[in-house]
Parts: sequence; C-alpha cells; structure tokens
Amino acid sequence: MNTAPDLTPADSLAAASMPSGLPGFEDILAAAARIAPHVHHTPVLHSQSLDVLAGCELHFKAEHLQRMGAFKFRGACNAVWSLPDATAGRGVVTHSSGNHGAALALAARTRGIPCHVVVPENAVAAKVAAIRDFGASLHYCAPTIAARESACARLQRETGAELVHPYTDPRVIAGQGTAALELLGNDGGFDVLITPLGGGGLLGGTAITAAAVSPKTRVFGAEPAGAADGFQSLQRGERVSELVPDTICDGLRGLLGAPNFAILRQHNVEVLLADDTATLQAMRLLWQRTKQLVEPSSAVAVAVVLAHRERFAGQRVGIVLSGGNVDIDMLASLFAAGAS
Amino acid sequence: MNTAPDLTPADSLAAASMPSGLPGFEDILAAAARIAPHVHHTPVLHSQSLDVLAGCELHFKAEHLQRMGAFKFRGACNAVWSLPDATAGRGVVTHSSGNHGAALALAARTRGIPCHVVVPENAVAAKVAAIRDFGASLHYCAPTIAARESACARLQRETGAELVHPYTDPRVIAGQGTAALELLGNDGGFDVLITPLGGGGLLGGTAITAAAVSPKTRVFGAEPAGAADGFQSLQRGERVSELVPDTICDGLRGLLGAPNFAILRQHNVEVLLADDTATLQAMRLLWQRTKQLVEPSSAVAVAVVLAHRERFAGQRVGIVLSGGNVDIDMLASLFAAGAS
Repeated sequence: MNTAPDLTPADSLAAASMPSGLPGFEDILAAAARIAPHVHHTPVLHSQSLDVLAGCELHFKAEHLQRMGAFKFRGACNAVWSLPDATAGRGVVTHSSGNHGAALALAARTRGIPCHVVVPENAVAAKVAAIRDFGASLHYCAPTIAARESACARLQRETGAELVHPYTDPRVIAGQGTAALELLGNDGGFDVLITPLGGGGLLGGTAITAAAVSPKTRVFGAEPAGAADGFQSLQRGERVSELVPDTICDGLRGLLGAPNFAILRQHNVEVLLADDTATLQAMRLLWQRTKQLVEPSSAVAVAVVLAHRERFAGQRVGIVLSGGNVDIDMLASLFAAGAS
Repeated sequence: MNTAPDLTPADSLAAASMPSGLPGFEDILAAAARIAPHVHHTPVLHSQSLDVLAGCELHFKAEHLQRMGAFKFRGACNAVWSLPDATAGRGVVTHSSGNHGAALALAARTRGIPCHVVVPENAVAAKVAAIRDFGASLHYCAPTIAARESACARLQRETGAELVHPYTDPRVIAGQGTAALELLGNDGGFDVLITPLGGGGLLGGTAITAAAVSPKTRVFGAEPAGAADGFQSLQRGERVSELVPDTICDGLRGLLGAPNFAILRQHNVEVLLADDTATLQAMRLLWQRTKQLVEPSSAVAVAVVLAHRERFAGQRVGIVLSGGNVDIDMLASLFAAGAS
C-alpha cells in the first residue's frame, strides 16, 4: 500500500489524499481567518500561586474552553472549511475515537456536511457518544490498525469523503497553529512556549507560528515519559515509528508524524519528558489553583515546567492547556487508589 | 451569655460584638466600593449545552474564580475594611475551619492586621493548611460548640480582636451581596437569581441587592435536602435552630442565621431542595460542560434547576457558582464508589 519507508500505516492513509508539503506561516494566517467565525478566541489565564510554585510567569492559553473542549477543533475546522464545495459535499472521514473524532464531527456540522468516524469496537463509550452527539456516522471496526485502515479506505471509496488525519494533515497542523497565534498576539514577549506533544499537530503548528511571529521565543514539547517517541526521535535524528505508549495522557498516545517530525527539526524544538505521577500532581495543582478542569494531556506541560524549574526560572512562559475532556471515573479511580 | 431565645450559640457570639440591625442596599453599595481594590470582578459564564439540558438560559457568576476560590472573600473583606483603624489594629477572629476562615485570613492580610482562627482538633488538614498559608494564627480547640465559643471569647478578651461571624455579621452579608450587584449590573433582565443556601449570608445579600436593583427578579435559595433547615424555617414561619446536617455540601452545613432568616422572609425568598445524588450529578455536568471545577455546594443550585425544570422553563436565570474548593480525594472516593 505504501512505499515510503518512514511512514507509519496511519501516516500512509493521510499521505494518500492530503495536500503534499509542510504548511507554512501563510497557511496559519489563512486558517485563522477561515476558522474565526466558528472557533472561540479562548482566554489566557494566570495564577499567582502557580507562578510562585514554578518560579516563572505562566500564561495559560485556555483551549480546554475551546468548542468541544480541545484545541483539536481548530485543525478540524480548518480542514473542513478548506474543502472546495464539490469535495465538501461528499463529507469527511477519520479514524480517531478521541478528541479529533469529536472535533471533526462538530466541524462538519458547522458546514452541514457528512462526517464518518471509524471507531474500534473497544472504544470508550463516553467518547463515542460525544462523536455521535455531534452528528457523525459511526463505523465500528476491529481494534487493529489494519481493520481501521481498511474501514477508512472503504469509506473513502464508497462515499468520496475526504480523509482528515488527526495530526499529519497540513490543514490540521495549520489550524492548530492558530492557538499560538492568538496567544502571541494577545500577550507578546514570551521567552518560551510549551505545548503537549502526541502526534505533533499542535506542537508543529506552534513552532511555525512562533518562528514567524516571535523568533526569539523558544518552543518546547512536553511529552509523557511513557510515550517518548518524539523525544527519542529528536535525540536520534530519526523518527521512531514503533513504540507502544503507556501513559494516562490518552490524547498523547499517537506517534509523532513524519511531517510533524520535519517541522520540529526545522525549528529546533526541544522535547522535555514528565512521568505520569508528575503529570497527575501537576493536574491536581492546576485544578486546585485555577479551578479549571484540564485533562492529563494538558497537565503534562505544567509537569515539565515543575520538573525543569532551572530551565525556566524567572521567564515568561506560554502554555497551551490543550483540553478538558477528562474521564472523571477513570481519574476518580486513580486518585482514590493514590489517596488510600 | 445570651438572652435572645431564637439565637443559636453561634449567633450569640456574633450578636455580642456585631453592629446591630440588618444591612440595607446602601451597605451593599458601600461594600462594593470598599472591597473593589481587593476582590476579583469575576466573569459570567455560559454553556449552550447546559441551557439545552435545563430548558432555560443559565448565567453563571463565577465566584469559584474569586480570590481564595469562593464568594466568602467578599464578605470577609468588607468586614475587615469596615473596621476603624484603632479597632483593626487589634485584628479579627472567627471560628470557621472552612472557606470563611481562609477568606478572613486573606482579607486580614490585605489590610496587614492579625487574624485568629479557632479550629476544632478534627478539622480537615488541607483546609487548616490553607488558613495558615494566608497568615492566620490557628487556635485549636475541642470539637464542640462550647469549646469553640469559649476559645473565641478568650481570644477576644485577650487580644481585643473583632469577631467576624461567617454569615450573621451584617458586614459579611453586605459583602456577599456584591456578587449579585455585579451580576445584575453586568447582564440585567434576569427572571430569576439562585444561590446556594447554608447560613444565608450569600442568599440574604443577594435578596437585598435584587430587591433594590431588579425588583421583578425572583430570588431562590438552593439547599441540600440533608440540611433543609432554611426550607423548613420558611415553611413554618419560624426559624429551625436545631438540625444535624447530613450532606456532601460541606459549605452548606451551617444553620440559617437569625438575621438571614429575617431578610429571606422580608424579600419572599423561596427555597428549593436537592438531594446529594442530584447535586453530584449536577456537579459532573458542570465539570464536563463548562470545564470549571466547582464544589458540591455550588452545584446544588444547578441541581434544583434541573429538578424543577417547569419552574424555570424558558427563563433567564442567574446562578452564583459559590466556590471551587473541592476536596479532590473525597470526591474521588465518592465517584469511584458510584462508578463501581
């Protein structure tokens, strides 16, 4: 199916239909204009007590307050509204049972076009319900990459729907870069920007934006130690495309995409790691001090700041709080286990 | 010590030193000006999906984003900054180990005066730590009303500190009324205002404000079914001063105060009840839909709306989200128990 040796199967799906090449800053500017009528311009939050704890000045871009509760809506919305009318009418398709699935479903609804989401039979019921609530058609498949690919390919053939990959699609990367655009435009002069790192859509878009708008700002990715393929890839100078993630950060289990890897290298992005214990502690701190219900995949960015205080001492640090779609029951079990 | 037959022991402490009489709207206006340099003007939040669920238009005054995480800071701040300089220098004292204790400690710090908090030996360590962190002197006593009263009285004698009761003090009631003043001023035309009801400081202040600013707005208290002394008091026309509260809403276990009862009757405030199961469900909904970490004592107000949909159908409803000082471990156990 795929001849490019450094693409994972998931990437190959995207590569089959996505516009080629990496997005540039002009694509992010275009995305910002395109999605403006549909997305929330989220606030930037502060916490004096967290600043004291961290020893630096933290500015939180509150993407957990974005529509459907995550920055993912930006990229999905940009992809949906980038489609020519004729293509758009045939709809969009993806295979994410997480935030991207819900984001694409809601984005498709804003344009009134069909959305198909391929969902493994063992997907979390609550997440599937969210996707259905946004009006997408669900297509169950066996919980394997092969089954997922085959279901997606079949849907594309049968419906003509456009595949929108969760993080390698350049339209998605460009959309994710608009969060940093708002943050830097809103409150300039950052020494550092940090975003969580999973597949690299948000971090890639952020790196492109920062390089254009504020070249002195250093960009960091925060990655779970149990899903450190991004960290390892940059260390080795070669993308790690096989790793079984083991982390509570359910939004960060995807492997760094090939175009995302290229963007991170191009912009000298550095990746810092935090283990799940540190991330849970950071999440509790965020909950207690900001009263914002952010998910573990967001808290990892605060965890790396707290674990690397010396790197950020006294600096002005922007952090994208990426989402708030917390699985309350799962976390309750974790906390209850930790407290007893 | 006390000859007024309808005052509880806690009230008698307050009556001994507090200014007499009920606060009026002019006191609330004065409080607003007095505390303006110290408090946050909290935002008003909306959630389309909650509006759909509730069948009405909900406007949330986000007092969980107030300093120290609760509206309580308003009343404490007004009491502290109402004191003449000579009195203020001797400090303030109270006997709340909950939000009021922390609020008074922080308020005293804003004025640079001493604060004494009497704390029962069995108080929750995290809450005591918060009070200490704000710089108050802690005074432990046996976990009885008699011991608490005696410790407070001794501290007043020894230090000359001014007692600030959590909800019967008219300066506190006036301060709490400023939240509704901001809400109504910010976004007028409410059919209904709802606040949680514990001792009646917030609800009393809200009733006074609404009567003056927006007399057509009906004011409701939301009370836990397991601490329904306010509901029963208004039903009987006589204040219930003996009831052992049994509710997860730890901020609403205080009994309705005598002046608070008088204010609620004067303004025809109605009280609606919600049981803890409904309150926990409402809290989960609030967490999921708004990503705001509000405490059970806030969620009870949403629970009564959902339990009385017909009363509020199609109306414009203002709700004070009173606080966000969630005991994460306690809730984790509750959720974990409920989920299994």
